[in-house]
Amino acid sequence: MIGAYQQRCQQRVDAALDTLFQAPLPQLERLYQAMRYSVMNGGKRVRPLLAYAACEALGGQAEQADAAACAVELIHAYSLVHDDLPAMDDDDLRRGQPTTHKAFDEACAILAGDGLQSLAFEVLSDPARNPHDAELRLAMLTALSRAAGPAGMVGGQAIDLGSVGQRLDQAALEVMHRHKTGALIEASVRLGALASGRAEPRNLQALHSYAQAVGLAFQVQDDILDVESDTATLGKTQGKDQAHDKPTYPALLGLDAAKAYALELRDQALHALRGLGESAEPLRELARYIVERRS
Amino acid sequence: MIGAYQQRCQQRVDAALDTLFQAPLPQLERLYQAMRYSVMNGGKRVRPLLAYAACEALGGQAEQADAAACAVELIHAYSLVHDDLPAMDDDDLRRGQPTTHKAFDEACAILAGDGLQSLAFEVLSDPARNPHDAELRLAMLTALSRAAGPAGMVGGQAIDLGSVGQRLDQAALEVMHRHKTGALIEASVRLGALASGRAEPRNLQALHSYAQAVGLAFQVQDDILDVESDTATLGKTQGKDQAHDKPTYPALLGLDAAKAYALELRDQALHALRGLGESAEPLRELARYIVERRS
Repeated sequence: MIGAYQQRCQQRVDAALDTLFQAPLPQLERLYQAMRYSVMNGGKRVRPLLAYAACEALGGQAEQADAAACAVELIHAYSLVHDDLPAMDDDDLRRGQPTTHKAFDEACAILAGDGLQSLAFEVLSDPARNPHDAELRLAMLTALSRAAGPAGMVGGQAIDLGSVGQRLDQAALEVMHRHKTGALIEASVRLGALASGRAEPRNLQALHSYAQAVGLAFQVQDDILDVESDTATLGKTQGKDQAHDKPTYPALLGLDAAKAYALELRDQALHALRGLGESAEPLRELARYIVERRS
Repeated sequence: MIGAYQQRCQQRVDAALDTLFQAPLPQLERLYQAMRYSVMNGGKRVRPLLAYAACEALGGQAEQADAAACAVELIHAYSLVHDDLPAMDDDDLRRGQPTTHKAFDEACAILAGDGLQSLAFEVLSDPARNPHDAELRLAMLTALSRAAGPAGMVGGQAIDLGSVGQRLDQAALEVMHRHKTGALIEASVRLGALASGRAEPRNLQALHSYAQAVGLAFQVQDDILDVESDTATLGKTQGKDQAHDKPTYPALLGLDAAKAYALELRDQALHALRGLGESAEPLRELARYIVERRS
């Protein structure tokens, strides 16, 4: 079932994203191509899905969350472009394709990432793309700028780079993941919930707990897949985390305990949604999918 | 006179900026240090000055423009950090100090730049830092995200990198500068004007014309100084533009004609302010200062 829902979300957000990369001048063609290349890459669109599903969980319509879905994906895409740079993770492949700095060049990749970040905030502030009242748009902008910034995703990347070769305990590993991937996943859910126009503190708190658990489950499963999958299935170089001596859940807990932990987090996510009805089913399906996926 | 006004603006914005770099976690200390290092560097704060002066030109108080001043300087600072990277302009010195990637490392500089961009939007959306009504804050966010993004500053940097070794005519050179530096200078004036709470279409248009002329004058004078100054006065490597075969106004027009053009732009800037009274005097002084400065 998640397959059909995921496909619908993917098509929605891809159609909306696709409108963002028309170069306004011939001189800007290459930059816009690099941005388009970095975004329109067949990605699974997990964060847009979370935004749509959170919006629908509170009784909103999918189209109300289009801008939120675009914005979180733009931030995610920019972070991948910069993470792949030679000075960072130095990756040549992303989803089986050359990374942006390989397909273009390093300077172009840095600028494309920078531009995608600006674009995320532009999409949210633009009433033509995000037709909500000013207070709601601002709440989205506040949540996304915090989640993307140094106390969120960017901070997580910094912690990650500073942790290579270090012995992190589970608490320290979770601090890293809560920043690096958790903050943007939580923001995706929050922006989607806000976009429904029906977010109340109680629901926002429940969805926040859901997002925290799902975000961590996603990361634990990623670590498990890095150990178990081969490069072809994963679309990136396998065993890369181990090769770089990065701390992972399987390395820390053992593979079996890491798998058990992923399932426990899935159950926490489902528990957080107990007060929501049938409309939250896509969120529940996603929590199940995350720990079952093979790539 | 501009010296005293500039110093006042510099002190105001430096005090406001200084509050932004408290690491919320020990693991984030280095990232926040790199951001602080990139921003708190004794910069002239031309963009904050423009924001304050535009706010005061329309009868606002300086403190109303603190968030605008911070936001435009954060965007400017991030752009310098990324522009200095080895894959971009590859500069070791900035204002006589090691650039961020030299003082820290390349990965840290990329992330510090990314974080500073997020922070700019966070500052504008936060009602505690930018205490204007939601519509006004949104207008600022719209203007800044557009000016910073691929159709603005980031696009200008892409055009600049794509122009090295090319024969640009004056029109093409101005397209580059209107994006690379002009967009953020125009946004600085616009955000400051909005922050006054008294911006009307007629005044916004006059200030926009002023900002366009001043932005270009700044660039022409920069090119002139690159030819005339030595490295010690300028705090960066002299003759760098010529060495990189970058298009400049002196190269295109000759040094004397470039100087005449800078003065013409100053006069255009002053003419644009003819409808504004005494309160616009700092803006006028700045236009004069820009073409007289020696560094």
